[in-house]
Amino acid sequence: MPQKPSFDLSCPLPIRDYPQVLMAHGGGGRLMHDLIEKMLLPSIAGPLLKQRHDGAVFEMAGARLAFTTDSFVVRPLFFPGGDIGSLAIHGTVNDLAMCGARPLYLSTALILEEGLPMETLWKVVQSMQQAALEAGVQLATGDTKVVDRGKGDGIFINTSGLGILEHSLSIQPDQVRAGHAVVLSGDLGRHGMAVMNEREGLALESEIISDSAPLAAPVLDLLGKGIQVRCLRDLTRGGLASALIEIAEASRTGIEIEEKRIPVLEEVRGACEILGLDPLYVANEGRFVAFVPEKECEKAIQILRTHEDCKGACRIGGVSSAGPGLVRMKSTIGISRIVDMLSGEQLPRIC
Amino acid sequence: MPQKPSFDLSCPLPIRDYPQVLMAHGGGGRLMHDLIEKMLLPSIAGPLLKQRHDGAVFEMAGARLAFTTDSFVVRPLFFPGGDIGSLAIHGTVNDLAMCGARPLYLSTALILEEGLPMETLWKVVQSMQQAALEAGVQLATGDTKVVDRGKGDGIFINTSGLGILEHSLSIQPDQVRAGHAVVLSGDLGRHGMAVMNEREGLALESEIISDSAPLAAPVLDLLGKGIQVRCLRDLTRGGLASALIEIAEASRTGIEIEEKRIPVLEEVRGACEILGLDPLYVANEGRFVAFVPEKECEKAIQILRTHEDCKGACRIGGVSSAGPGLVRMKSTIGISRIVDMLSGEQLPRIC
Repeated sequence: MPQKPSFDLSCPLPIRDYPQVLMAHGGGGRLMHDLIEKMLLPSIAGPLLKQRHDGAVFEMAGARLAFTTDSFVVRPLFFPGGDIGSLAIHGTVNDLAMCGARPLYLSTALILEEGLPMETLWKVVQSMQQAALEAGVQLATGDTKVVDRGKGDGIFINTSGLGILEHSLSIQPDQVRAGHAVVLSGDLGRHGMAVMNEREGLALESEIISDSAPLAAPVLDLLGKGIQVRCLRDLTRGGLASALIEIAEASRTGIEIEEKRIPVLEEVRGACEILGLDPLYVANEGRFVAFVPEKECEKAIQILRTHEDCKGACRIGGVSSAGPGLVRMKSTIGISRIVDMLSGEQLPRIC
Repeated sequence: MPQKPSFDLSCPLPIRDYPQVLMAHGGGGRLMHDLIEKMLLPSIAGPLLKQRHDGAVFEMAGARLAFTTDSFVVRPLFFPGGDIGSLAIHGTVNDLAMCGARPLYLSTALILEEGLPMETLWKVVQSMQQAALEAGVQLATGDTKVVDRGKGDGIFINTSGLGILEHSLSIQPDQVRAGHAVVLSGDLGRHGMAVMNEREGLALESEIISDSAPLAAPVLDLLGKGIQVRCLRDLTRGGLASALIEIAEASRTGIEIEEKRIPVLEEVRGACEILGLDPLYVANEGRFVAFVPEKECEKAIQILRTHEDCKGACRIGGVSSAGPGLVRMKSTIGISRIVDMLSGEQLPRIC
């Protein structure tokens, strides 16, 4: 019989500080970072988990494969520009793409709440299938569980994904160096604000459409055309700010960005103001940053702009050796400040 | 933007019969079978999903890989012989083993409910890690989400797994033929009754310990010693009966088993009687059936019995061409009856 481990008093997370799980432990900010870094990673021995990447990359049968997982708990299930089904496909396709992999196979595991309208399930399943077809991945294996009414929230979906790396680059945070450019693939904050508007009814003048989209095609195009991509990161929970801070910390470099170069739609900015949010921290589901050598930056941007979901690609800053581990942003009025990781969360259950 | 599919009136599941998801749609019986066969499989195009296997097997980079996923929603989180953490490792390791694969990498995705005691999470995470070490798999990638209090149930865990096939056999239900023996790896019903006893307090004289265990080592031993294994299936939701019925239907063979040959512990039989359950349908998490040629049956049993978790391995019946698609059981008093799939479920949230 498997041994039931007794409670280990040396638990590395200060349990007395946070005796219970808070919403912020899933919010993409400092508390989530601490939970992962201080409890989950130290107690789970796998060296791959310690890559601190969107997925694990390893050799198997002579090929380099990428493997990733994500659960989706977005509320509401449907929002302008997508639903939990398409989001679950895009999210995992994108995590594979951020490893520099061609996504091939996805698993889909559903946790359904008793009482869920069957028609809702049918819509979500159709949406998953359509998104998988669009992204060129095969849904290879699945699982369905049902929990009692009041013990779930309609549908939770886990997708895990398997992809193959067709190049020899090492694409990960510790590859970032001074002299790299930071390329952003498009405007920020649409997914987070589309979901919040649907959830809260913000009475905006115009509807905000989520940016949720599969990003494998533009990434594979960059790689296929020989761009020496050094790091990729999609801007989900915690937004651009959290992604850049994690990369700066992992690479021990300084990242400098300019606020005026960061595109944000007017209606997104307005919604953020209503909710007191900073678009830099708002979740996206179809946006990423690419770190490339400065001399390849212009070519990378031109390649990205040929893709519908990356038409707004632009250079937002660069990497230097000054202030290692920090992200600095020059504001529109020219003042430079350090971009901090949020301690809690901005938006619960956005993906 | 991804298209939001409109509701398709041709939905193949009779939505008017089941307008809402019922607990039984996750119970391993006929309703779950119908949901998967009539809605999920037809609308999700991937040919691999249609293998009706515990996982998908495909070629990649010149090797045969197995890929599988399972979510775990067991209640309570801790039970004699295991917990949701060890169960989540064993379940996915076993699904890979049932594909005839050596399990290598697992993903772990946690959905935590706000308010979960941090100590509980810590215990579960330690248990996952210990179970992974015991099973020889690496936890390669992970995800953590938090849902509001009352929208989850403590912890749900998804594990997906990747393994490699180191032989050239095709191990799946449609390979079963007349002349194969049915080998059962041990006594039935302990996992289901251990969880139900913990949940309901059945006031039994002796504690029942779950059979939850990793099954890759005994399966790989069978394969390594040249046994021509034709089909493997672990006996989770729906138990032995549902597994055999699915295999009989997929292979269009008749499976005949003998009740007196099926081992069930006395305390498990007693607990089943209290709850009005048939051990044939109760979930196990460390038991499987292997279909092997009759002439290799004895050798297979001897190999299995060298493994701690398969000490009770025995031949419980055989395959014939009579009554294709049906499972028949000869009772202890010599009467033969058809074993039916349950329409609903026996035990909710057992895994």
